[in-house]
Order: sequence, then structure tokens, then C-alpha cells
Amino acid sequence: MLLAASDQSVVSTIRDVVQRWGGNFWIRDQINWRKEIKKWKRDRGTVVHLTMYGQNLLNVIDQLDTDKLMVVIGAEKVPPDLFRLADYNVAITNQPHSEIAALSIFLDRVQNGQELAADFSGRMRIIGNLNEKVGVKRSEPIE
Amino acid sequence: MLLAASDQSVVSTIRDVVQRWGGNFWIRDQINWRKEIKKWKRDRGTVVHLTMYGQNLLNVIDQLDTDKLMVVIGAEKVPPDLFRLADYNVAITNQPHSEIAALSIFLDRVQNGQELAADFSGRMRIIGNLNEKVGVKRSEPIE
Repeated sequence: MLLAASDQSVVSTIRDVVQRWGGNFWIRDQINWRKEIKKWKRDRGTVVHLTMYGQNLLNVIDQLDTDKLMVVIGAEKVPPDLFRLADYNVAITNQPHSEIAALSIFLDRVQNGQELAADFSGRMRIIGNLNEKVGVKRSEPIE
Repeated sequence: MLLAASDQSVVSTIRDVVQRWGGNFWIRDQINWRKEIKKWKRDRGTVVHLTMYGQNLLNVIDQLDTDKLMVVIGAEKVPPDLFRLADYNVAITNQPHSEIAALSIFLDRVQNGQELAADFSGRMRIIGNLNEKVGVKRSEPIE
């Protein structure tokens, strides 16, 4: 994750979650988003900007080259040149919606839901079998 | 949407969006969630609680009766009896994640993606054809 802002609390929270729960997710803040997008495209990556002003996901999903994919999400007002820099402006509906919601559905579709079955090996994990209606398993450190 | 808290700004924001962008989404705050869940179940509705401590969505989705569905999302600490009151505790992965992300993916799956093609008729909408890489259409009031 490239964060086009300076926010040490986001950075440390994410690193802390990864350290405890596993996975290879990483974050870098204070990046120059225009530079990063241009570099990505030079390296033959595809840039998808999620926006309610884009074309419907259903019309785009099949033509997307997902080999090397950068997904861009804007916060509040999006600089107009982002629309031009992106290879695709994709709408998870043209109605107002949460950026997190858009990202979730997009990543779920791009990965064909395989992320739901992914296995992580961190210090923490949910253990045991959940009794369907009663049980709650607390996460416990594996050490 | 039933909001188990008092938050007039959330209520008015959501009503404002619906009024401008259309749809039949509604919100009521200051509800008693235990009462609402029990009432829903008495009326033969199904209650699904989204939680990272639940069973994997992939193992549940096919058996869910989606005719009359209440989806419950907790904020921060979830009271333990919610796990027992829910008919299903469902995990959109057992890793830490955003509640909005969980809700998005769940609703997308339950609706088989049909929400992406839904049509809304509000005062505002995105109009025109988006040129794939250049155009940005601004929403304009229809009056």
C-alpha cells in the first residue's frame, strides 16, 4: 500500500496487524502518487482508479489484465489528472459509496474470491471450531 | 438500517444522500438491538452476524435463506450474547478487517452482484458516456 499522505499512525497500525496476524501486506507513506503511477505504467503495470464516475465494473472486469495491477483510491476531492493517468476508471456503481466498500468488492472480484480461503501464519489466529450458534473462539498467541 | 446508537449526523447524511441520489434505503437510530433481533426472528427472519470469529462465508453462503435477512455488524467490542442471538456468525476471513469491507462482500455475494447493475432515480445521477481514459462526467441535478 502506497499512502499519498504522511500518517505514522496508519503505518504503525498496519505493520502491527501484519506482525501479529501474518501475511505479506506492506505500507509506505509520504509517496508521490503521480510518480508512482507513471513508474507502474512504465513497468507495464495496469492502473485502475475506483470512482463513481467510472464505467461499470461489470463492463470492465473481463478485459482487465490483472497480472500487475495497481488500484488507486482517492480520498475526498480527486485531482482531475488522476482520471487521465489511470488506464481504467471503474465504478462499483455510480451511486455514492464508501471507498473501502469499492476496494473490497473490486479485490474480491479480481481474485475470484480466493482471498476468502487464504491461509495466514502470524502469531495470532482464530483457533478451534466455532460451534455454529454458540461458540466464540478467542485469538491466542502461537508461541 | 437500524443504528444502535444516537447519531443524528449519520441519520441526516444518509437521508440526504437518498433524497439526492434515489433508492429506498432508510435509517433509524437509537434502536434496541436485542429487541430488534428477537422481533426479526419471531417474524421468521434470518439473522447473520458478520464477525472474524465466525465460520467462513464460503461454507455458509449456500445454506443461507436470504428471503428475509438481517445483517448485524458490531463496532469495536461486540457483546457476547450477539453471537448466541445470531442464526449465523459469518467470517469474511478470520483476519482483522474493516466492517464495511465485510458488509460489502457479504451483500455482493448474497445479491449475486445484481446490485452493481441497479438503477436509481434520484435528483442527482452520473450522466453521459464516460470516455474510458479521459472523460469525467459531473453529476447534475435532474429537474
